[in-house]
Amino acid sequence: MLRNAFYAQSGGVTAVINATAAGVIETARAHPDRIGRVLAGRNGIIGALTEDLIDTSRESPEAVAALRHTPAGAFGSCRYKLKGLDENRAEFERLIEVFRAHDIGYFFYNGGGDSADTAWKVSRLGAETGYPLVGVGIPKTVDNDLPITDNCPGFGSVAKYVAVSIREAAFDVASMALTSTKVFVLEVMGRHAGWIAAAGGLAAEHEDDAPQIILFPEIPFDEDAFLARVEEVVERVGYCAIVVSEGLRNRDGRFLSEAGTRDAFGHAQLGGVAPVVANLVKEKHGYKFHWAVADYLQRSARHIASRVDVEQAYALGRASVEMALQGKNATMPVIVRKSDAPYEWEVGEASLSDVANVEKKMPREFIGPDGFSITDECRRYLRPLIQGEDYPPFEGGLPRYVRLRNVAVEKKLPAYSLS
Amino acid sequence: MLRNAFYAQSGGVTAVINATAAGVIETARAHPDRIGRVLAGRNGIIGALTEDLIDTSRESPEAVAALRHTPAGAFGSCRYKLKGLDENRAEFERLIEVFRAHDIGYFFYNGGGDSADTAWKVSRLGAETGYPLVGVGIPKTVDNDLPITDNCPGFGSVAKYVAVSIREAAFDVASMALTSTKVFVLEVMGRHAGWIAAAGGLAAEHEDDAPQIILFPEIPFDEDAFLARVEEVVERVGYCAIVVSEGLRNRDGRFLSEAGTRDAFGHAQLGGVAPVVANLVKEKHGYKFHWAVADYLQRSARHIASRVDVEQAYALGRASVEMALQGKNATMPVIVRKSDAPYEWEVGEASLSDVANVEKKMPREFIGPDGFSITDECRRYLRPLIQGEDYPPFEGGLPRYVRLRNVAVEKKLPAYSLS
Repeated sequence: MLRNAFYAQSGGVTAVINATAAGVIETARAHPDRIGRVLAGRNGIIGALTEDLIDTSRESPEAVAALRHTPAGAFGSCRYKLKGLDENRAEFERLIEVFRAHDIGYFFYNGGGDSADTAWKVSRLGAETGYPLVGVGIPKTVDNDLPITDNCPGFGSVAKYVAVSIREAAFDVASMALTSTKVFVLEVMGRHAGWIAAAGGLAAEHEDDAPQIILFPEIPFDEDAFLARVEEVVERVGYCAIVVSEGLRNRDGRFLSEAGTRDAFGHAQLGGVAPVVANLVKEKHGYKFHWAVADYLQRSARHIASRVDVEQAYALGRASVEMALQGKNATMPVIVRKSDAPYEWEVGEASLSDVANVEKKMPREFIGPDGFSITDECRRYLRPLIQGEDYPPFEGGLPRYVRLRNVAVEKKLPAYSLS
Repeated sequence: MLRNAFYAQSGGVTAVINATAAGVIETARAHPDRIGRVLAGRNGIIGALTEDLIDTSRESPEAVAALRHTPAGAFGSCRYKLKGLDENRAEFERLIEVFRAHDIGYFFYNGGGDSADTAWKVSRLGAETGYPLVGVGIPKTVDNDLPITDNCPGFGSVAKYVAVSIREAAFDVASMALTSTKVFVLEVMGRHAGWIAAAGGLAAEHEDDAPQIILFPEIPFDEDAFLARVEEVVERVGYCAIVVSEGLRNRDGRFLSEAGTRDAFGHAQLGGVAPVVANLVKEKHGYKFHWAVADYLQRSARHIASRVDVEQAYALGRASVEMALQGKNATMPVIVRKSDAPYEWEVGEASLSDVANVEKKMPREFIGPDGFSITDECRRYLRPLIQGEDYPPFEGGLPRYVRLRNVAVEKKLPAYSLS
């Protein structure tokens, strides 16, 4: 039976979520007997609710292939969490109504933990209401906090960006430290977990390599221990490079970024934990400092994406279509690690019910006993994820990223207001 | 006559200053009849004053070749400005004394405007004192503010980094803007001139492409005009990406970064103009914002260096040795532009006296009449400088940068204290 497919990107975008989209669309196109068109939600699930669907069949094979090397969300993503099924059943019923109007038999939802939950609910609703639908979640999140899967597409590329960047900046600092900056602080993402900060530790391969200090959200900030460590490192190594997670908290659980700065008018914080940490060092030791905040640069840096990450992102997109065609409702393709070195992996399957609302924490044994470093076990886990480069094509000195036509499908239903 | 050469790196380092070092050392090695050893100053000119010289002949050809793809200063650099010749003649005489002790007949000083001045003074002193010395300055500065030369090695790679980064981050913002961040601010270097901020403008190739606003140090910050422009862009495009120079000043000449933040204890600023600008937008329009500060990441990002920049950096190192061998004292090799498109250039010569203490400003006609954009003339100048990629080798997912042995030459003179 020929049905259409729906695909949407959800939540914070990554350097490789479009590679997953390419995997979905190219695989769907390879099964013209089973899948008609892939309709994408403009701005994620909002596009489904408002019946703002993009007809991806209007995109050339070249444009779809170029998604593989284009960062961010080509169809638009959104931060919009559907309420519970009991709380706002109307919203879910609207989804089914839109799917019915466009003969959508396959639902692909590409996101993190919340999205897995939504995909699971949609899958159940299809079954409950007798509307024939196969719902598949596809993992994506730089936070690397989904359970079951070895890692989450998007994370490996951020990890690589952070490790490359702290290595490069530390070379800079090391060469100037005698008369200039002695302490450098790089702030990275990870509000709730230290996965990204930990990845910075991959840059350190020998004793005293940068970063010499990592500040994790899992470890309450011990100002005295930190300042003592900074001094010790500067005395021994000549400089100190620090990676700090945006989620760093003090002992009473407050974010340091919020404890810190006020503007000239006394208004609350402007954000940024790096300047707060750098300033503490300056106050205590008087060292000249510099700090950087990578922010969106880290998760959009397709130019230095991890090849493993790109391959996995694409493979999960492809697998999600293959699973859907096998009728595997309420499932999610996941990465299964077979071996650390050489890194071997394959695509496995999880049930969405096991993924939804379960957060994978970074194991405590990944953080060194000093609280400022990563362990060998952590390295073994992380190292494979940043392997390989996968440079986008460049033209005129700049990466040539694709912008899709994103032609809208004609609407068939009355307008709908988001609740 | 066989003499040794001295080479030192000065001031802020770049992604390609070691490419220049490779050009110097490899070219010197190709003339074993004229140049004995290249002795490098450890930590720049301080190494010459303190007789802390590195014997580069102890480095393998492979290590020297790897300098071409290694960022920052392999021998150490410093921020140490020699006083005037009249003010502290002793310091210059100490240099000559060290050079005499190690039979140094060639002096290569790789830096910006101050360094050209120092190189010029050293050149003169050699002539005055009858010590046979050929002094050559080699341009380097991300600030791109040296006169005569078409551009300064180091700048092209920062320019590329900034243009690539704002393009990537803007793809991210564009795909999330409906429900999330609408305004993104990227802070870049350039305390006195807007060259680096202008380079961000290369990412915009079509109308309404990011960055839609550039804030230059040359244009006093007009808060009302800026806020109106942000709103207009967000209304029309859906989001607004901004590149701001760290040197942005308000109308009475104060840096915005200093006007801005105070920490919780009321201590003066932590630095950073991006959060100040972003917060103004938030206060006025309520838009959700994000900001990034690239800091050292931009000037150390060898992984995304401009190939043109690397080639020019190397070529200038090579030319400096060739000029020295021709006895061209008090000179500096420079880049001469022959054509914009295709970009054609050759190495020319300047007199250090014409370079020293002359700052090249960004022409006003490079900034659009609105004060927030670059002109076509600016694009024509900048575009060639970011052409081509020159990826370093990677191993295990990370760039393989060289660390030299940096073996010290035995000292022959009494110790010397820096004044």
